[in-house]
Amino acid sequence: MSLAEETATQTIAATMAELGQRARDAASRLAQAPAEAKNAALRAMAAAIRADCPHILAANARDLERAEASGRPAAFLDRLRLDRERVEAMARGIEAIAELPDPVGEVTAEWTRPNGLRIARTRTPIGVIGIVYESRPNVTADAGALCMKAGNAVILRGGSDSFASSEAIVACLRAGLAEAGLPEAAIQMVPTADRSAVGFMLEGLGGTIDLIVPRGGKSLVARVQTEARVPVFAHLEGICHVYVDRDADADMAREIVVNAKMRRTGICGAAETLLVDRAGADRHLAGLVGALIDAGCEVRGDSEVQAADPRVVPASEEDWSTEYLDRIIAAHVVDGVDEAIAHIARYGSQHTESIVTQNTETADRFLTSVDSAIVLHNASTQFADGGEFGMGAEIGIATGKLHARGPVGLEQLTSFKYIVRGSGQTRS
Amino acid sequence: MSLAEETATQTIAATMAELGQRARDAASRLAQAPAEAKNAALRAMAAAIRADCPHILAANARDLERAEASGRPAAFLDRLRLDRERVEAMARGIEAIAELPDPVGEVTAEWTRPNGLRIARTRTPIGVIGIVYESRPNVTADAGALCMKAGNAVILRGGSDSFASSEAIVACLRAGLAEAGLPEAAIQMVPTADRSAVGFMLEGLGGTIDLIVPRGGKSLVARVQTEARVPVFAHLEGICHVYVDRDADADMAREIVVNAKMRRTGICGAAETLLVDRAGADRHLAGLVGALIDAGCEVRGDSEVQAADPRVVPASEEDWSTEYLDRIIAAHVVDGVDEAIAHIARYGSQHTESIVTQNTETADRFLTSVDSAIVLHNASTQFADGGEFGMGAEIGIATGKLHARGPVGLEQLTSFKYIVRGSGQTRS
Repeated sequence: MSLAEETATQTIAATMAELGQRARDAASRLAQAPAEAKNAALRAMAAAIRADCPHILAANARDLERAEASGRPAAFLDRLRLDRERVEAMARGIEAIAELPDPVGEVTAEWTRPNGLRIARTRTPIGVIGIVYESRPNVTADAGALCMKAGNAVILRGGSDSFASSEAIVACLRAGLAEAGLPEAAIQMVPTADRSAVGFMLEGLGGTIDLIVPRGGKSLVARVQTEARVPVFAHLEGICHVYVDRDADADMAREIVVNAKMRRTGICGAAETLLVDRAGADRHLAGLVGALIDAGCEVRGDSEVQAADPRVVPASEEDWSTEYLDRIIAAHVVDGVDEAIAHIARYGSQHTESIVTQNTETADRFLTSVDSAIVLHNASTQFADGGEFGMGAEIGIATGKLHARGPVGLEQLTSFKYIVRGSGQTRS
Repeated sequence: MSLAEETATQTIAATMAELGQRARDAASRLAQAPAEAKNAALRAMAAAIRADCPHILAANARDLERAEASGRPAAFLDRLRLDRERVEAMARGIEAIAELPDPVGEVTAEWTRPNGLRIARTRTPIGVIGIVYESRPNVTADAGALCMKAGNAVILRGGSDSFASSEAIVACLRAGLAEAGLPEAAIQMVPTADRSAVGFMLEGLGGTIDLIVPRGGKSLVARVQTEARVPVFAHLEGICHVYVDRDADADMAREIVVNAKMRRTGICGAAETLLVDRAGADRHLAGLVGALIDAGCEVRGDSEVQAADPRVVPASEEDWSTEYLDRIIAAHVVDGVDEAIAHIARYGSQHTESIVTQNTETADRFLTSVDSAIVLHNASTQFADGGEFGMGAEIGIATGKLHARGPVGLEQLTSFKYIVRGSGQTRS
C-alpha cells in the first residue's frame, strides 16, 4: 500500500467511525421517539421526495450517464433508472410505511410470577442497521424508511453507480426527519464510493452496527455473509422446489407449477426445481412439462422427464443446485414425498418449497420435515413475500434460523427487552 | 508448525468434521422426534446417571487428582468436584426438563390472508448447537439435555480438566437417547482436549454448527465472541446497576440494594454499581451505604458517597465498568433518573438494571430508556434468571439483541418457519 493509499484508508476509517458514532447517538434518541413523530417524519419524507423530484431525476441522469459511459449492461441501467413514476412509487411506499402500526413498545408476552413480579416482553429497536446494496436507488428510500419506522438508525451504502441518486434521496429523507424534530443522523449515507468503506461496515464500526442487511445479487450477499463480523439477515439464493405428489390434483398442480416458475422468474421465490412423484408421473409429468414448455420455459430433466416430452433438455448434476432466475427449470422424478424431502435437504437453500397434494397426511409430512423458512401446501412459491404475508413492507427474505426467518418486515427489525415490575421483591 | 503438529491438527480437523456431520444427521432425525420420545430419553438419562453414579464419581476423582496436581485453585476444584448430592441434582435437573412443555411445533402466530392462504409461524429446532464451557461437569448434563429437548443436536466441549467426568456423564445421556430410540449422535462430546478443536467449532465446522453458547468466565466468552463465525448467545459480563431515585421508599431501597449485591455475589445478575439520586441522597445515601458495609460489602464511592460514611473507599474511573463478582460495590451520586440512564448507557453491559422509586412516571422513563436485556422496577437484579422468570431451565443469559435476549431457555433454543396452507392459490 502506498503512503497515499494508506492515508486515504485512514481517512475513510475516521469518517466511518464518526458516521457510526452519530448513528449510535441518533439511535438512542430515535428509540424514544413516539409513533406520531416517526410517522410525521415519513410523511414529510414522501412530500420532500415529490417536491424534489426534478432534482432527484437530474442526479439520476448524471448517474446514468456515467454508468452508460462505463459500459454497464441494459438490465443494470434499468434498475438504476428513475422516472417520475418510480419516484412517485418511492413516495407512496414511504407513506405506506407510515400507515403501518409502530412495533416499538408492543408487549409480545406478559405474565405474573407467584411472587407478584409482573414480566412483560416488550419490543425495542435493534439499534443501528447497515444496509449494503447495489445501484438501485429505490432501496435507499425503502430501507431507510423501514428501518427508521422500527426505531433504528440506518447507515446506507448503495452501489457507487447510484451515488448521486441516493444522495438526492437521502437529502429528502433527512429533511423529513428534521421537519419532525428527529435526529437527521438516524439516516446516513456512506459519503464515499470507496469500497473499503463496506469493509469497515462489515466489521461493525467498532461495535456500533448491530445488524447488516445486504440487498442484491449472490456475489454481494456472499461477500457480506463471509466477511461480516455482525449478524446478517439475508438469503444467498432461493433454490425453491415444487413437489407434485401422487395425490395431486392435476389441474391445480399445473397452475401452481407454471405460476411458481413463470409469473416472475427473477425473484427469489421463483421455483427452480420441479419434483414429480414417480407413482403419479403417468398422470402428471407430461402435462406439467408440456405446460411449462408451452409457457416458454426450458425444462432440464432427468431421463424419465426427458421421456415425457421430446423438448426436454438433459439435466446435469449442477442443475439441481442452480438458481436460474430465468425461464429455465430443473425437473426430477422422485420416489414419493420422502425422496422429495431428501432431495430438498441436499440441494435446496432453505428458502421456500411447496407440495401439491390432496393428501393432508403427505402434506403434513412435507411441511414438518422440510427445513425451509417457508413451506407451502397447494400454493405457489411466489407467495414468499412480506406483502403477500400481510406484513406490509419488507426489506428482504432471510434464510438464517435466528431472529428473522422468511420475510424481514418491521417486526423482524426490532429486538425486545423484559420489563419487570415489582413492589419491593428480593430474591430468597 | 512442525510436521507432527500439522498432522495432529489435520487429524483433529477430520475428527471434528465427522463429528459435525453426525450432529447434522442426528439433528434432522431429532427434529421429527415426538415429545414423548424426547421425554422418555430424558428420563432414561436421569436413570442412567443415578445408576452410574459410582462410575461418574470415580471419573471425577481422576479429574480432581490431575487438577490438584497441576495446582488449580480451590474455587476451580470446587466447581469441578462432584459428590452424590451433585450427581443427584443433575439427574433431577434432567427430569425437570422432561416435565417442561415441548416447544417444537408450537404455533406462535396464525392468520388467514384475503386470498384464503392460512399462515402459521411454527417453532422448529435450530439445528446443531455447540456448547463451549469450563470444567463444570454439571453443564454437560444441563446443556446437553436442554438443547436436546428443543430438538437440537449438541456438540459439547468442556474444560479439559473435567474430561473424564464429562465423558462419564455423556455416556449416560447417550444411553438415554438410545433407550428411547433417538440418535445417540444428538449429544456428542469433542473427543480431544486439544484446544484447536474449539477453533474448529467457532468456525462452525463447515456450516454445520448453527449456534455457539459459551458457558464460563469473561475470558472464555470474550474468545468465543471474538473468534466465532456463527451466532453466539452469551453475555460478556453483568455490570448491573441499581438506581435509587429521590422518590424511593427507604426501607425497600435498602432491602433491594443489599439483596441485589449480597445474596450471591458471583452471579451475573449481582449488582455491581449503586446509583443514588442527589435529590434523595440526604434520605437514602448513608442508610444504603451503611447497610451494605454492615453486610460485609466494600463500598467504593465518589466524594459524595465518601462523605456519607467514613468506611467508604474512593472509587476510580475503572470502578464504574468493573464486574467485581465479589463483596464490592461501586457507588455514585447522580442528578436524577436522566443522569442514571446516561451513566448506565456509558458504563453498563446491557444486562440487568433496576430502579427503586414510588414514582411510576420516573420508573417508566427508566424502564423505557435503559437499553438492557432486563429492566426492573422495585425488584432485585438477582431475579435475572430463567427459573425466576418461570422459563424452567436456562442455559444462560444473553445480552445480544437478536433472537435471544435475557434468559436463554427452551423457547430461545428454537427457530421457526412459516407453514402456509392453500387450496391451489397462485400469485397474480
